[in-house]
Amino acid sequence: MTQLLSTIQSPADVRRLSRTQLSTLSDELRQFLIESVSKTGGHLSSNLGTVELTVALHHVFNTPHDRIIWDVGHQSYPHKILTGRRDEMAQLRQAGGISGFPKRSESEYDAFGTAHSSTSISAALGMAVVSRNMSIPRQHIAVIGDGAMTAGMAFEALNNAGVTQGINLLVILNDNDMSISPPVGALNKYLTRLMSGSIAKDAHDLGKAVLEQLPSPVMELARKVKGHAKGMLGPATLFEELGFNYSGPIDGHDLDALIPTLENLKKLGGLQFLHVITKKGQGYKLAEADPVLYHGPGKFDPSLGIQAKTGVSKPTFTQVFGEWLCDQAQADERLMGITPAMREGSGLVEFEKRFPTRYFDVGIAEQHAVTFGAGIACEGYKPVVAIYSTFLQRGYDQLIHDVALQNLDVTFALDRAGIVGADGATHAGNYDIAFLRCIPHIVVATPSDENECRLLLNTCYQYPGPASVRYPRGAGVGAEVLKTLEPVALGKGVIKREGQSGVAILAFGTLLHPALAAAEGLDATVVDMRFVKPLDETLLRNLAKTHKAFVTVEEGCIMGGAGSAVTEFFNQSAITCPVLPLGLPDVFIDHGEQQAILSGLGLDKEGMQERIAAWLKTI
Amino acid sequence: MTQLLSTIQSPADVRRLSRTQLSTLSDELRQFLIESVSKTGGHLSSNLGTVELTVALHHVFNTPHDRIIWDVGHQSYPHKILTGRRDEMAQLRQAGGISGFPKRSESEYDAFGTAHSSTSISAALGMAVVSRNMSIPRQHIAVIGDGAMTAGMAFEALNNAGVTQGINLLVILNDNDMSISPPVGALNKYLTRLMSGSIAKDAHDLGKAVLEQLPSPVMELARKVKGHAKGMLGPATLFEELGFNYSGPIDGHDLDALIPTLENLKKLGGLQFLHVITKKGQGYKLAEADPVLYHGPGKFDPSLGIQAKTGVSKPTFTQVFGEWLCDQAQADERLMGITPAMREGSGLVEFEKRFPTRYFDVGIAEQHAVTFGAGIACEGYKPVVAIYSTFLQRGYDQLIHDVALQNLDVTFALDRAGIVGADGATHAGNYDIAFLRCIPHIVVATPSDENECRLLLNTCYQYPGPASVRYPRGAGVGAEVLKTLEPVALGKGVIKREGQSGVAILAFGTLLHPALAAAEGLDATVVDMRFVKPLDETLLRNLAKTHKAFVTVEEGCIMGGAGSAVTEFFNQSAITCPVLPLGLPDVFIDHGEQQAILSGLGLDKEGMQERIAAWLKTI
Repeated sequence: MTQLLSTIQSPADVRRLSRTQLSTLSDELRQFLIESVSKTGGHLSSNLGTVELTVALHHVFNTPHDRIIWDVGHQSYPHKILTGRRDEMAQLRQAGGISGFPKRSESEYDAFGTAHSSTSISAALGMAVVSRNMSIPRQHIAVIGDGAMTAGMAFEALNNAGVTQGINLLVILNDNDMSISPPVGALNKYLTRLMSGSIAKDAHDLGKAVLEQLPSPVMELARKVKGHAKGMLGPATLFEELGFNYSGPIDGHDLDALIPTLENLKKLGGLQFLHVITKKGQGYKLAEADPVLYHGPGKFDPSLGIQAKTGVSKPTFTQVFGEWLCDQAQADERLMGITPAMREGSGLVEFEKRFPTRYFDVGIAEQHAVTFGAGIACEGYKPVVAIYSTFLQRGYDQLIHDVALQNLDVTFALDRAGIVGADGATHAGNYDIAFLRCIPHIVVATPSDENECRLLLNTCYQYPGPASVRYPRGAGVGAEVLKTLEPVALGKGVIKREGQSGVAILAFGTLLHPALAAAEGLDATVVDMRFVKPLDETLLRNLAKTHKAFVTVEEGCIMGGAGSAVTEFFNQSAITCPVLPLGLPDVFIDHGEQQAILSGLGLDKEGMQERIAAWLKTI
Repeated sequence: MTQLLSTIQSPADVRRLSRTQLSTLSDELRQFLIESVSKTGGHLSSNLGTVELTVALHHVFNTPHDRIIWDVGHQSYPHKILTGRRDEMAQLRQAGGISGFPKRSESEYDAFGTAHSSTSISAALGMAVVSRNMSIPRQHIAVIGDGAMTAGMAFEALNNAGVTQGINLLVILNDNDMSISPPVGALNKYLTRLMSGSIAKDAHDLGKAVLEQLPSPVMELARKVKGHAKGMLGPATLFEELGFNYSGPIDGHDLDALIPTLENLKKLGGLQFLHVITKKGQGYKLAEADPVLYHGPGKFDPSLGIQAKTGVSKPTFTQVFGEWLCDQAQADERLMGITPAMREGSGLVEFEKRFPTRYFDVGIAEQHAVTFGAGIACEGYKPVVAIYSTFLQRGYDQLIHDVALQNLDVTFALDRAGIVGADGATHAGNYDIAFLRCIPHIVVATPSDENECRLLLNTCYQYPGPASVRYPRGAGVGAEVLKTLEPVALGKGVIKREGQSGVAILAFGTLLHPALAAAEGLDATVVDMRFVKPLDETLLRNLAKTHKAFVTVEEGCIMGGAGSAVTEFFNQSAITCPVLPLGLPDVFIDHGEQQAILSGLGLDKEGMQERIAAWLKTI
């Protein structure tokens, strides 16, 4: 079944194959992908869409000398398989196994690590100017999806590249009319028109008909109007306006179209833009029919496809948020929900259905998402920006300059805060507590379970300024979620256990639960702090009267985090109790299973017990 | 001279004026501006360019019911003058006076606070969807420069707006072919062609000539090709491709063009894009001739213009950086300098002249600037990204995800770190220590004077991973700068004064000098810590043996800052010495004179002395 594929050790082997063999290789690669991903879980639809493109790129270009950058990178599995990592696919996204994204430390063929969208053109341009200045003949290729092209960063890079002289840069737009959610935005509409040929073909027919009948003085004029004579035969595309030579659209599953086109573009060099049409899920009927479902499946039987889950499972925090959003929206018509292209991941599917005029998918555009929210808040409405912790990094300036500085009433629902598991370091939600709490005005809330999540969403929503609620990926302890819209007291923690040992554990977030378990053996007091900012200083002051040692627990970076806030407060209040900060260390944490990673970091019951006991002996 | 202007108390008065009176008003307004700014300092060129546009907007639209958002906002002085703040212009940008930017708390006419570029379309779109959902008939106008239009955020907003139904949004492109530095990028080239009419006019002439001679079947065909028949007369602009109705370009200094056009667009409603051509410095010959020089002048005599400074003044940190960059580039051909549209402000003028192929002004595009640097570093070259502290907030995700995570050798030169003075809270460089030190791999260096700045730039440049050097606006103590390229020891502080009182002051940055002065009276030890990260733990441990109390001093936010790093370390090392953190409090700090603001916060010699003495009594 994969006879030819099994002979491919590196792209050099791909470059030796005939056109017929490349087709066979593509078919085997696709089959291998389906089997492999169905066993490990991972990204599927996007990878099925890039099989032929990957084969063609490694056939035509001299990798790794030539640089290929896979934007977002979740479509890089075929690339991984062809570049010596076929066997490692069995441990994809698992602890110790290969990453689900391109990673420089993993292979010399991974020219640039990607995962967050829309970085590829910038990075390729950086490489290209070095090659230019060093006079190295090299090709630099950014493969970017139509969804990723809507992010401002991609536009910034195109705008800069379009005036950079003397470089080889090939941007390949992998246009499958999809981001993870269905695409939105004016650019995608434009691309759809380009793709369907309605721009190029109509204009071409018209131009041809016109030119055939033109008297010669007009032909002369047409020739004179340089740069726009072309506009007669097909209007300049947006990408040509920005300085690129536009080719396409071509069928990205047709090697007979891909290979000669790529060979030609390689020969031409310079600033090239190739528009390739692909289909997410190509070649696997179930994925073609529902590419969103097959975007990032868990394990499944390829012959049956993904089966509906049976039995009742605990709701995820994402679901808790989604339900709260609908309930709150029902109760308050001022609520507006905003997502930067993460309708499914952020739990907004139901909200969109029920409140279509109050739902805004703004595209992969975190900067815009935040300031768009600020504009809404200026008019007295109440925006809720649903965004992953890691992607809020993209809207950080907007959060500071547009929301916090103006003290606007924007609620941030931060999903995937803390360890994210299989997606790994690129998606880590480790930094939000640290980068938010240093900003004036903003509330930072850290719910410990599903019901607390709802209560703190209520509280932050009703708080008339900027506020954030952070919650982790997946499910919590399974607390029953009461359907209330009542808030809790702002900046007040709750004592969950009164201990007699003089040790107090201050928990910020879901690690409250292992902390509670650990406290049993230690007879420690345990507090659900609920808020990093404002910090419950009264409670801390009172606890300091009866406790001699404090432990802080958070699923976030220790440096600058919630524990740091507690030590700051103690120092400023002349409280001399020592504080042991438990949280995430100052390293980037690789992919793996969430709970296993936490345990490895000593952030489970046993780890906490051991570390606290050992520490108590030192103070 | 300003007879008519003096009668204008609010835009309602502007709306009552005749066309002739509006011309007179514009002339008076321009004269008032020149006189006013020459007395206070502030932005000049950009405001002279928006006089007629401002008059026309307030004449045609029903402000403040209709919303005008001034992107960047440094061109909002005419708006301030016409909206009841004429007299307050005498205290512009001074402590207690009005801000140099639109500010919601200052006036109901300031619909959205701006200062960082390219936020206006996002905010206006947010307002517009609220008006839509509330069925309020209202106009929302974003006035954005051609420089600001190159930022990705503006593109994200256009892309989103272009598919938003049922809203009134008028984007006015104030095209003066300028950002603060001369404009760069493919979009600006495109706009220049649009502006010169070379696209519209040539195509129009051609189209007309063609149509006149066409046989009727072709005319028929042209009519059939809907949406592209227009392309025959003038190709669809990029903005039309994104869903806007494009008008212009029109002369932004011609009220007879502006007023009817705006009236018409107001009537039309919907998604409108108006291209207005203005001239920075219009009406003041000296500013027209050198709009960069007159971008943000200090006080000057309008009849003489800005005079070259006489005498020798202390070099600014910006100049120290600029000289270092040239020297380092001379010594190492791998160095590449990157600025996001801040050539003058960041001190890269000389560098560009001497090393044009290694100089990259990427436009107002901080996200791209950082990842572009990452791409360069991947190829073994050594990028230096020169960026204001406040603008690095825009590239935060790229710094984490593209640079730090991959441990790439990118040096960040952070100008305007700490209190920025007249620009105020929007430009505050208060947060970089906190938001950087929580990220793994990155070096955070805080030079205390000009020579230290050079030494730490040497050190960070030679460090083979991500590193940042932060320095404040303006000059330091005037230390002699040695022309060395030698580094200092990474992560090591220097004891500057040995005291006997058991108190140690740990200074991070230029506040070392008032700290040294304060230490005299207190007989305190003083350390120039040089690095926040890595922190000199050995030195701290040793000091803790001989000192009973510590004070940290930094020109950055206390929450999560350098002092916080020290208390974290003490806690984790079971060092129980109390720490007094001196730095910037958890509030947004308004504009004013730099040193006065620092003194007001107790961050001068006297303040430190007092606060430390008072604190020592409490511990």
